[in-house]
Formats: sequence, C-alpha cells, structure tokens
Amino acid sequence: MSEPLKLGLAGLGTVGIGVINLLRTNGDLLTARAGRPMQITAVSARDKTRDRGVDLADYAWVDDMRDLAARDDVDVVVELVGGTDGPALDLAQAALKHGKGFVTANKAMIAHHGLELAATAEAGNLPLKFEAAVAGGIPVVKGLREGASANAIERIYGILNGTCNYILSQMEDTGADFADVLADAQELGYAEADPTFDIEGVDAAHKLAILASIGFGARLDFDAVRVTGITQVQAADIAQADTLGYVIRLIAMTDVEQKDGEGSTLLQRVRPCLVSKDHPLASVDGPTNAVVAEGNFSGRLLFQGAGAGDGPTASAVVADLIDIARGEVGAPFSIPVADLEAMAPTEPGHRMERTYIRFTVADRPGVLAEITAAMRDAGVSIESLIQKGRPNEGGDVLVAMVTHEGQERSVQQALHLLDGSDSLTAPPLVLPLLRN
Amino acid sequence: MSEPLKLGLAGLGTVGIGVINLLRTNGDLLTARAGRPMQITAVSARDKTRDRGVDLADYAWVDDMRDLAARDDVDVVVELVGGTDGPALDLAQAALKHGKGFVTANKAMIAHHGLELAATAEAGNLPLKFEAAVAGGIPVVKGLREGASANAIERIYGILNGTCNYILSQMEDTGADFADVLADAQELGYAEADPTFDIEGVDAAHKLAILASIGFGARLDFDAVRVTGITQVQAADIAQADTLGYVIRLIAMTDVEQKDGEGSTLLQRVRPCLVSKDHPLASVDGPTNAVVAEGNFSGRLLFQGAGAGDGPTASAVVADLIDIARGEVGAPFSIPVADLEAMAPTEPGHRMERTYIRFTVADRPGVLAEITAAMRDAGVSIESLIQKGRPNEGGDVLVAMVTHEGQERSVQQALHLLDGSDSLTAPPLVLPLLRN
Repeated sequence: MSEPLKLGLAGLGTVGIGVINLLRTNGDLLTARAGRPMQITAVSARDKTRDRGVDLADYAWVDDMRDLAARDDVDVVVELVGGTDGPALDLAQAALKHGKGFVTANKAMIAHHGLELAATAEAGNLPLKFEAAVAGGIPVVKGLREGASANAIERIYGILNGTCNYILSQMEDTGADFADVLADAQELGYAEADPTFDIEGVDAAHKLAILASIGFGARLDFDAVRVTGITQVQAADIAQADTLGYVIRLIAMTDVEQKDGEGSTLLQRVRPCLVSKDHPLASVDGPTNAVVAEGNFSGRLLFQGAGAGDGPTASAVVADLIDIARGEVGAPFSIPVADLEAMAPTEPGHRMERTYIRFTVADRPGVLAEITAAMRDAGVSIESLIQKGRPNEGGDVLVAMVTHEGQERSVQQALHLLDGSDSLTAPPLVLPLLRN
Repeated sequence: MSEPLKLGLAGLGTVGIGVINLLRTNGDLLTARAGRPMQITAVSARDKTRDRGVDLADYAWVDDMRDLAARDDVDVVVELVGGTDGPALDLAQAALKHGKGFVTANKAMIAHHGLELAATAEAGNLPLKFEAAVAGGIPVVKGLREGASANAIERIYGILNGTCNYILSQMEDTGADFADVLADAQELGYAEADPTFDIEGVDAAHKLAILASIGFGARLDFDAVRVTGITQVQAADIAQADTLGYVIRLIAMTDVEQKDGEGSTLLQRVRPCLVSKDHPLASVDGPTNAVVAEGNFSGRLLFQGAGAGDGPTASAVVADLIDIARGEVGAPFSIPVADLEAMAPTEPGHRMERTYIRFTVADRPGVLAEITAAMRDAGVSIESLIQKGRPNEGGDVLVAMVTHEGQERSVQQALHLLDGSDSLTAPPLVLPLLRN
C-alpha cells in the first residue's frame, strides 16, 4: 500500500464535519479507489472548545489555520472556511508556496482569485481543485473540464443557487409572496440569516464565472457578470407564467460570441427567466441544482443533483482528494492560465429574445395606451397582453405582457421612454423567456 | 509543446468518421486542453475504396486492423468496430500487449471481456478507457469512477437504450402500437434493421453491467443481468399508465445487498417500468439517455444527454483521449481488477414493490373472479383494478391492475397459480412501479 495522503483541514463548520464523517464512513472504499489511504493529520478552526459532535483527538489542532501550510505532516490543505479574501486566501497562497495541494469549496475566493492561485499551482505542478465550489455535490467542474473536454462549448446555463430555487419553487407551490417564503426558508435552513448573496444572484454569479472560464477557456471575469436577483419576482408573476406554460427560475447563463477578426466576447448573466414546462430545468425543484452544457459534438449534457448541504459538498471535496491521491494534477481551468483568453464582455443589446414584462400601474384610463405606444415607438412587438388585474390596496394594477422575439435593446428603449411616467407606480419587471 | 499523441483508428463507420471530424473541427482547442496535439497516424476498415466523405490521405492505411497494435507510430489504438469477440478483442489484446493505450466504444466487448483487458492494462500501467461504451456522449463512466468516487453508491438506474426510449415515447405521443412505431423508428434510423439487441434489452444490459462494476466495485457479471425487453408493451398499457400518472420506460437498475457475514449480492436488471410523471426520468424523451446514481453522501446525481449518434459518441471517445494525453492512467473499473468483489446475483423474490399487471383474458363470466382469487391465494393485495376493457377482434379483453406494495415472489406465485388457465389468452405482463 502506498503512503497515505495527509490532509490539513481548515474549517470545522457543517461541511468540514461532513468531510470528517465521509472519510470515516467510507474509509475502506476510499482507500481502494484512491489506491492509498487518505488521512486527516491536522485541523484548524476558530473555537477549539466547541463540541462539534465529532471526536477530533486524532488530529493535531492548529490555532492559526495558515500554519497548516507549513506542516510536514500535510500533503494537501482543504479549505472550508469561506471568504473572498482574508485568511482563506492567505492559506491558499501559503499552501501552494509550501508545495502543498489545495482543495476548496470557496466559490467567492475562486471567482475572484482563481487565476492567480491556478498560475501558482501550475508553476509548482501542484493540484488546485474546487469541485465543491460549484453546484455542491454535482461533478460539473469535472464534467466540463474532462467529460465535455472534446467539445467547443456553445452555451452553459443552469440553476446554480439552491436558495433561490427553493424560494421560487415554494412560491410556485404555495402562491405565497417572496418575503413570506424567504422567512420560511430562513427558518428551515434553506436561506441564511443574511440572504443577500443568494437572493441577489451573487452566489450564482461566482459559480457561473468559474464555469465560463473552464468551458470557454476564458480568463475569469467575475466583475463582468450581469446579475439580477429574484427579489422583484411576485406571486402574480409566477401565476402569470404558469398560465403561459412556464415556471420562473433563476438562470445563470454564459456563452461566447466570435466576430471575424475582432476576437471573442463573453456574455455572463444571472437573471430570473421564464422556463418552458417541457424544459428539463422546469422540473428542477427545491434546493436542487442543474447545469446544461451544450457541446458542438456532444449536444446537450445535463448534470443535476443537490447544490448544497454538508453531505453533497463533502462528496465533491473528497472526490477532488481522490483525484489527487490518484495523481491527477492538471490545469485547474482545463487549459493553462497563461493560455486563457481575455474576453471583453458581450454587450447583449442586439440579442434576440422573447420577454415577459410586468408593469405596476395606476388604475386610470390611458395607461395602457401610454405603455403600448412606448412599445410601438421602440419597435417592440407585443405577442399577448396577458393580464390587466384588479387594483391592489394601494390602487395599483398589474399589467403583464409577452413580446414577440426582438432585440433586447428595444425593450430597454421602451422602458426608457416610460421613465418618469407617473402612470407607472413601480419599476417594471423584465423576465426573458429561456431559449429551449 | 510536447510530443503528439499518435492514434491508430480501427473502424470508419459513422462513429469513426465522427472522431475524425471532431479532431479536425476542434483541433486547436483539443491541443490546448490536452497539452499536446492528438494526431491520427493510421486507420483501418474493411473496405479501402469506399467513399466516406472524408479525406484519409494523411493516414497510413492498414488492411488488417490487428496490425495497428504493433505500429511504432501508434500510441493509442481506438477501436470503433464493435463485436463481442473476434477482431475487436484480438485488437484490444494485441494493443495492450504491445504497450499501447486502448480506447473503445464497444459495450459488448467490455461487458464480456472488460476485466481481462483491464487486468492486462493495469499490469502494464496502460490506459484502457470506454466512456463511449455507456450512454453515448454522457460522461457517466467518469461520473461514477471519479465524480461520485467519494460515495458508497446505493443504487444506479436509468435509461440506457435510446432506441427503446424513442419507441416508448413515440407510443406515448401517438398512441400507436409497438410494431408500427418500431417500423417507423427503423425507417428514421433510430432502430437497426435487426433491432433485437435493443428491444430485448441486451444493449442496456451490457451498459448496466459496466456501470455496476464501476459503481459497486463488483466483478463484471453480464450473464447475471435479468433482462426483459419492451416487445410486450402495448399501447393500452401506456394509456393505462398515463391515467395513473405514469409513463413507461425501459429502466436498467442495479444495487447491492449486504447481509451480515454472508458477503454482498448484486442485483442487475433491465425491464420496462412505470415511472411517475414527477420523476426526472419521466421527462426523458426520444433517444435521450439518463443515469441516476444515488450516493450515501452526494444524494441523487443525474446525468442526461444524447445516448447515441456519431457526434456524442465521438465526444466521449475523444474525452478519453484527452484524459490519456493529460497522463490519466487509472484502474479502468475504478479499483484494481484484483480487488473487485465477486458478488453472487441477488434473488429478488423478497424485494418489495408495487406492480402493474395486465391480463389478456377471454370475455366471459368468472374470469375476474378466477384472477382475483389467485391474487388472494398468493397474498397479493390489489390496490386498484383499473380497467376491464372492451373485447378486441379476437374476443379478448384486457384487465389491468396495480398492486399494493408486496414481495415480488407473491406476484410470481399468483401468476403461477394461473398457469394453464384457459381464461388467459396471452401471457400476463408485469411492470413494476419505479421507486422514486
């Protein structure tokens, strides 16, 4: 039997404890698959005295997690602390500098600093892996980096945030409004006390930026992700979508445009979309995640599973460790960092799409004429005006419509024409229809 | 740039030509991802003169494909000929003996001879890969071998034959009967001239046996797969299933039973099942494949995509080649052949399931009493008698029912009690309800 792979574990929250439990529960199996035992030698967390329900006596305790990087009894540092910068990033840099492998579930750090870390790892021929950073237990980093590696990827899209998907599918099932479902989700542990990163789409954007880089050989560009969260989606929108044969899902999508002689541009966006009920993503309910990758030879590949939770996340972390134990050390983003292409962000105004638009308007004559005139003037063709509801307590009514396929900028222009109109009592909501 | 990976390609049918087209179309991308160029040096097929629409002038032509194995200008042999034994197997053995890597899409050969080939590959530290042998372009071999590698797998099941799935979903959409849809499928190229291996479930069984070995660390045992094809499924069954909220799919399923002190037994079966419409597999239509793996930490993972076709199959073949170019050489069945466990087949009589049973009976008094008495005597509890239809041209009627959950053997016993009864004018059809 070969030497064990010795692990230093930073972070003993639910995922850290999940990794310990997984290594203990599946130990013999993992040794057989990895070809060698995997063994935690040292752990670090903020509070040594806290009872985590797991016996830590076999592991050396390290007060400052950055000290894991220099230990002789650590081959791979596993970082499950989180945070874009700060100690997690210090630890990553120190680990690679000391010639250790590095495995993390930290999507924010990889989305912001993945390339510099990967460059360091590549220079040292060290493994840097982050399967758990994207879509929890679903092997989608591997799916893109290896499984679909023979393809020019044409589009990647999916449901990357379990909290939003839980909220939207609960709104769908119960008819309740966003705020109520969010409160329930927080009570049930599906949403955090401060849910901003989830419901505003930032978490999904972190994951999307990572997938875009791997899929398209593009330099990571988190700041270029165009993000709209789900906070403006109302129960009425979901009901309207339903009558049209759609559900609403927070969709992360990325693709590349190539123009002759001008290089490629990268579109990355996270926004709630109407998804046709006959699309595989429409039946993705609750905290489940799913990713579609469209390859030029494979066609549409779908990966689906649990997007979060201690078990699934631990599954992804330990899969990375098995790869490392088996000797798999490759470019973290599929091709070496130096060869990744810097792509300017795509300005999507010329993109063609069908759009759902919901206006909140004052209940008085002429409002509909004003809206439809703006549409006409901007060249937006209305396919159906699907509702003019009853006034709510404040005297407002909702007007919802679906456009024919047209340029995105036309819709924006129509809304611009309505800017400042006192007929509109709240900002309109624009939801694209996901192209099948 | 490193040395190219030199390929000898056996078989120039649609998949072989697909591989050539893929290598040409995506060449630069593949070189970037693989870290080195991949280059076909020699090809072999039966007929040198046939026009395949592709220029083969750059490649050495080899009349006897087995000669690819000994060529100095070949690092990896790619076998796309097919056949359980014969030349394909000779080529595989010769390639490994000559120290070449070996990549194949040949499910029948791997299902029958995978272990002996893997043992040879392992002894020589050579790559042997067969992603394309299971579920076409879906990276499910990799998904199990690597993506889900941290888990004890509890169950693997899915839709592994695109021909059957096409036929069943067409029957569903059109109401047509099996024979008519099969004829259409043959005309459209979704079914072969001799469709026996597909419609009798043998093709799905090949794939299932491979997945079972990888997922459970079991020695491959194709002969133990219990196979029922789809030829007995009638339009009436699909209509009945629909009214109950189900669709009918050919489901390949495998799991392991552990009994204290007695070792593990392996259940492998392929059979048409009723799948609840809210299950992800129910919406898998046409020639699409999908595989679910349930891990003890990951939970349910779903992989879905095109199960056949030249593009998807070439995508899987070339993904294997990229892995090889990147230096990935591991145990083909995830753990070394010597460590795979020989598992006896599970006798599933004690398994609990709900069952759909359809009888074809003579239209006369007392038949229903005879059937229900047999059910009672065998301890089968009927949940609902869902149809007693009108007589067909031959004067027969269909009687369909769904049982409460009970042991499989009870249903078998009830049917046994009805053996030889002249009330039954055709053998009954038993379709289990897939457990969600």
